[in-house]
Amino acid sequence: MTTFLPTLANISDATLNDALHHTLNNKTKPLGSLGRLEDLALAIGQILGSTAPVLEQPQMVVFAGDHGLTARGISAFPSDVTWQMVENFLAGGAAVSVLAKQNGIALTVVDCGVKRDFLAGLPAGAQRTGLQVRKAQGADLGTADSSAQAAMTAAQRDEALQHGIDLVKALPGNALLLGEMGIGNTSAASLLLSRLAGLDIAVCTGAGTGLDVPAVQRKTEVLREVLALHANATAPLDALAAFGGFEIATMVGAVLQAAQERRVIVVDGFIATSAVLVAHALQPLVLQRCVFAHRSGERGHEFMLQYLGVQALLDLGLRLGEGSGAALAWPLLQSACTILRDMASFASAGVSEKSASATTV
Amino acid sequence: MTTFLPTLANISDATLNDALHHTLNNKTKPLGSLGRLEDLALAIGQILGSTAPVLEQPQMVVFAGDHGLTARGISAFPSDVTWQMVENFLAGGAAVSVLAKQNGIALTVVDCGVKRDFLAGLPAGAQRTGLQVRKAQGADLGTADSSAQAAMTAAQRDEALQHGIDLVKALPGNALLLGEMGIGNTSAASLLLSRLAGLDIAVCTGAGTGLDVPAVQRKTEVLREVLALHANATAPLDALAAFGGFEIATMVGAVLQAAQERRVIVVDGFIATSAVLVAHALQPLVLQRCVFAHRSGERGHEFMLQYLGVQALLDLGLRLGEGSGAALAWPLLQSACTILRDMASFASAGVSEKSASATTV
Repeated sequence: MTTFLPTLANISDATLNDALHHTLNNKTKPLGSLGRLEDLALAIGQILGSTAPVLEQPQMVVFAGDHGLTARGISAFPSDVTWQMVENFLAGGAAVSVLAKQNGIALTVVDCGVKRDFLAGLPAGAQRTGLQVRKAQGADLGTADSSAQAAMTAAQRDEALQHGIDLVKALPGNALLLGEMGIGNTSAASLLLSRLAGLDIAVCTGAGTGLDVPAVQRKTEVLREVLALHANATAPLDALAAFGGFEIATMVGAVLQAAQERRVIVVDGFIATSAVLVAHALQPLVLQRCVFAHRSGERGHEFMLQYLGVQALLDLGLRLGEGSGAALAWPLLQSACTILRDMASFASAGVSEKSASATTV
Repeated sequence: MTTFLPTLANISDATLNDALHHTLNNKTKPLGSLGRLEDLALAIGQILGSTAPVLEQPQMVVFAGDHGLTARGISAFPSDVTWQMVENFLAGGAAVSVLAKQNGIALTVVDCGVKRDFLAGLPAGAQRTGLQVRKAQGADLGTADSSAQAAMTAAQRDEALQHGIDLVKALPGNALLLGEMGIGNTSAASLLLSRLAGLDIAVCTGAGTGLDVPAVQRKTEVLREVLALHANATAPLDALAAFGGFEIATMVGAVLQAAQERRVIVVDGFIATSAVLVAHALQPLVLQRCVFAHRSGERGHEFMLQYLGVQALLDLGLRLGEGSGAALAWPLLQSACTILRDMASFASAGVSEKSASATTV
């Protein structure tokens, strides 16, 4: 275990759990009638350590990186779309841009290893609003082609992990929403799923941004090659270095740091969950701090969720990434807190409770 | 067909539909990658007749009424909870109160036939903020016991329908969210489902506010009696009069009026959908204007949705009613409009489109 990574304490608190159940069960509604919104309220209450939790200054971070494996034709879109979409995020025109704005979520894009110099032409030390450049040494070309060599060196991986830790330390608020951008990164996520969950690559591989069936089959063959080349990369951090990408490694660091700080971590789709998969392999308690926003339409995501033993809030066939699903689910988290904080109790509202005899009329 | 009811035109517009698809398909995202959010955007665009729809002044209306059938012990809560919860809505302490407030939705409670005089002690003509009293003649005691006689007379039913029409005419905005309160009203909804969809009452009957298994069985037997007593009430409006309630009848009028005015109708759970079921039996085109917020945990709701051939947005095991599910789904409608209005196109953002060759690498 890499020693610089945050170590997670068990935050499960039986007394608080009882208090949360008591609070929910005395609200003016039939017992359990708010379904999974109540489970969500319990989870957020536990993370934030309160029966009246307040979500503050939510931060959407979009981790971006390029993938050398795209040379093998595993994506429907050209690699340049990664930097073009970063510019689109910064200009406010992408799905995650408009959804974050709608929901009052601050948006930061992190260049973890995009083949582009976003600061080109600017004076030394100048910054761009909404962008953080946190490239590991040598990451300015994206990851290496993992069908030829490891996507990242161990040093690059550790640097990316540290960047994730550092950037979360500097963020305000108590909630982190995970977003990502990287042409080719469904391949990295599929490889991580296959290796860490022990599933055949065929069930882990999907259409990504829109491959047709022959292209998915070709992608699967390439990924099978990659797995064979890195057959020894079985430890979580070894698999991470072997398959990449920089955005996933940075996200792993961010997730572990956010978990240590007891931030609510809102996990988007397939790529974001792959980062949680790696973090979970290192520190299983990370799941205590995670809310899974949606079940993606990307094949493999449901197996990832099953492997982690978790259930997602939305199931709308989303397969865009960027953090779009996390932004869409965000109002449900606010609602869960609102229920805990603002609803009246039977006693305070003067509403009659369920009659004991009524269940046995 | 009762002639005072609104008549619905077909609003399906092929030109607009093409324009909506064109708009969505040129946004900076892989084709179809926002899944059912795109279907929602298409639906709202059609209802509001625009490729850049704006939802304005959303109105949550909670229709409340009492049910004479509660004398037969078909609910886990006493009848008094109806008026107590109306007071809770007005005081801002109920689930729908806090969720509507969170989401910027105006809330109006309509007393359609609650066994309570909410204006008692006030000067003649005085009103209470957030409350409309729209009781049909004789509805001050709620509906009659439908196991002994029709829940409503034809005159009462028509009056309730007209109240629904009138109140929607007076509402601002272009979106109506349906909520309801009425101890015993899952029974009325189950009866309407059984009769209008031709399903056995056993599959239509659930736990409501929390009956245990023996009590659900007893409830089912009572409802079977009611169906037998009103075997001739097969026409939609006859069934509505036979089974009640005042809140459902008023909601049916409101739904038809809102549909005629091309408001977006956000349908909550089992009871609200039962009103749409009746409206649909009268005017099938009503479904063009409806968005189904969630699939309820109440048994019968999924069969109702199946019968109508529609799919709900959320599936969170909610079974509270009040409009709580409609309020929870509301941000998704806003997001669907935001996607249409505010996202950049490939051309405007300078993002490369999918390469034709990439699907056949």
